[in-house]
Amino acid sequence: MDQTDTLAEIDHSHVTFPEGLTLDCGVTLPELTVAYRTYGTLNAERTNAILICHALTLDQYVAEPSPVTGKPGWWDSVVGPGLPIDTDRFFVLCANVLGGCMGSTGPRSPRTEGGEPWGIDFPPVTIRDMVRAQKRLTEHLGITRLFAVIGGSMGGMQVLEWAATYPDAVFAAVPVAAASYHSAQNIAFHEVGRQAIFADPDWQGGQYWRTGRIPARGLAVARMCAHITYLSEQALTRKFGRRIQAAPKAAEEAIGLFGDMFEVQSYLRHQGSTFVNRFDANSYLTITRAMDYFDIAAEHEGDLAAAFRGTRTRFCIVSFSSDWLFPTEESRAVARALNGVAANVSFVEIATDKGHDAFLLDEPDFHRTLAGFLSGCAEHAGLAE
Amino acid sequence: MDQTDTLAEIDHSHVTFPEGLTLDCGVTLPELTVAYRTYGTLNAERTNAILICHALTLDQYVAEPSPVTGKPGWWDSVVGPGLPIDTDRFFVLCANVLGGCMGSTGPRSPRTEGGEPWGIDFPPVTIRDMVRAQKRLTEHLGITRLFAVIGGSMGGMQVLEWAATYPDAVFAAVPVAAASYHSAQNIAFHEVGRQAIFADPDWQGGQYWRTGRIPARGLAVARMCAHITYLSEQALTRKFGRRIQAAPKAAEEAIGLFGDMFEVQSYLRHQGSTFVNRFDANSYLTITRAMDYFDIAAEHEGDLAAAFRGTRTRFCIVSFSSDWLFPTEESRAVARALNGVAANVSFVEIATDKGHDAFLLDEPDFHRTLAGFLSGCAEHAGLAE
Repeated sequence: MDQTDTLAEIDHSHVTFPEGLTLDCGVTLPELTVAYRTYGTLNAERTNAILICHALTLDQYVAEPSPVTGKPGWWDSVVGPGLPIDTDRFFVLCANVLGGCMGSTGPRSPRTEGGEPWGIDFPPVTIRDMVRAQKRLTEHLGITRLFAVIGGSMGGMQVLEWAATYPDAVFAAVPVAAASYHSAQNIAFHEVGRQAIFADPDWQGGQYWRTGRIPARGLAVARMCAHITYLSEQALTRKFGRRIQAAPKAAEEAIGLFGDMFEVQSYLRHQGSTFVNRFDANSYLTITRAMDYFDIAAEHEGDLAAAFRGTRTRFCIVSFSSDWLFPTEESRAVARALNGVAANVSFVEIATDKGHDAFLLDEPDFHRTLAGFLSGCAEHAGLAE
Repeated sequence: MDQTDTLAEIDHSHVTFPEGLTLDCGVTLPELTVAYRTYGTLNAERTNAILICHALTLDQYVAEPSPVTGKPGWWDSVVGPGLPIDTDRFFVLCANVLGGCMGSTGPRSPRTEGGEPWGIDFPPVTIRDMVRAQKRLTEHLGITRLFAVIGGSMGGMQVLEWAATYPDAVFAAVPVAAASYHSAQNIAFHEVGRQAIFADPDWQGGQYWRTGRIPARGLAVARMCAHITYLSEQALTRKFGRRIQAAPKAAEEAIGLFGDMFEVQSYLRHQGSTFVNRFDANSYLTITRAMDYFDIAAEHEGDLAAAFRGTRTRFCIVSFSSDWLFPTEESRAVARALNGVAANVSFVEIATDKGHDAFLLDEPDFHRTLAGFLSGCAEHAGLAE
């Protein structure tokens, strides 16, 4: 399954900071590019901005079709006129994360001007580095304080890191389906994905641009493994159960016991094969590593509460009952830490059988929670209706 | 990571049935070999035999060192003189499953005498086919009725299939950490493993014996993914948490953020790399498929209880509280079906944080349950102390 790189050379809106960025690992990137999209209008006081932080394999195309896949924006049921994140009222902003593959500086970026890509030599980045890059963008746009920072999964990690690192720059924070650290089990699943990429000879030590063949099979296996963790067992059972379908004639390895295959097999293969056309393998390595290293308490001598001492940010922490990747218990621990420093925090567990992916799906209770919280905060922030 | 085949040509004790075996898929294997080990002594009446059914990647070396790895028998804390399965009292028997790679007929077997191995052309087998092969062995040994059939995980599937297919041949049945069908989530995890094997160019369409290079990287990824599902999140956290160790200098892809890696990464890599020396990739494909197709209710018009109607077998169903691969609920469903046909059934959930693998580990409550149940059954069966 040799595949060529279909991500190449889409012109993403971006800003470049020629002074670069010094990372947690000590390396200074000589130049920093942040690709981003905005929706709605920034008010004259620049006080109505909401930053959305995206998850591992998502991007800045929150509420408009992706220029890579042509598919609708990944949160277009949440962000838009009259929607929970109301673009008639708020100025919404989303940046591709540092280390990503949709226009921001990452392993695909040239190491030196006009030179070869960084590839596997791209320095390791942290969630805090991602947040620092986003902070540059908000400064560039003249935004001193964000009205809200919102994100699910790795996006929720960024939300917590924003609140911990720039407390005065965040009026309200909504970490969804997230945690204050990455668990051993989550690290283990990421490791399987990375090993699948390393095992693909087309990975070529990370220098796959040299042949034009991308490590599609390894990346597909990584995606398949990760995808299972995004769903609940109940959701898989409801969607597919043990239903069988005819196997594609071409793939003899696909043949099941009687020439059939389970629908869930077919679904997973589809998830894997479509992913490789929209994501860069070295970015996958870089970003999964950033998630693995995430541990806010460790940044504060093991004391999670200390990360938020004195905060005036209003928090709304959301978890989903069937999410086993970022279980409710981990969100509750964040809420407890915030309570411990008398922060303004509400915590909502949404009852659903859809698993981790629920934050992306049609979950009316979640959407009502989000709309209600933002409305209340807007009142406190003195934002006119 | 080219590796050569280290499984080759160990002389496993076995019996060959020249009449072959007709499989559920309709194919007749022209010859059937069953490799097996025994412990203890068969009594004169041949009524004290306990058949142990092994899990996916285990084998017949239950209570003695493996001739491949040199490691102790996988259940030597359970099977032996004075142990829960007491070889001073019972004659214990374990056969390598049909489709396996430890001496029983499988993808490594020659397709025709002296010819090339079956490889990927080995016909798909079912759990029931495995049980049929074991039945041949028990008949060969002159055993009409087994005192007990016991097994964990896929071994538990075989136990249920024994009781459903040969009810008069099973006095007592102990399915441990099992279910009456394989769930969509479990099929999905197996599919990831198979795709990792298919993606390895050293798999060579399943004909890896031609070059002597085995698909070690793909098989290692498959094992790593599966291994996570054998442990609980709590067990991974307890064993490794987020502890970091120095990365091996040689492997640049192993380097973490600051030249370190998480202990859980190192552990998983070890699990993957040791597995490939003791297991055959095509057997892994064959056996995972057999598990995926397992669904006793489907063999009885969707009615699980019907599979056991009229049974006189005594059942002891065991699950582990933190097992998320075969959750307690699935064992409870089997117990309910057995209750529905007024079978003699006890159901025990063992409280443990060790996950699915608990059936292989030191779990005193489980061992006491096993010993007590067998003792009671021995009394009912009229086996002298």
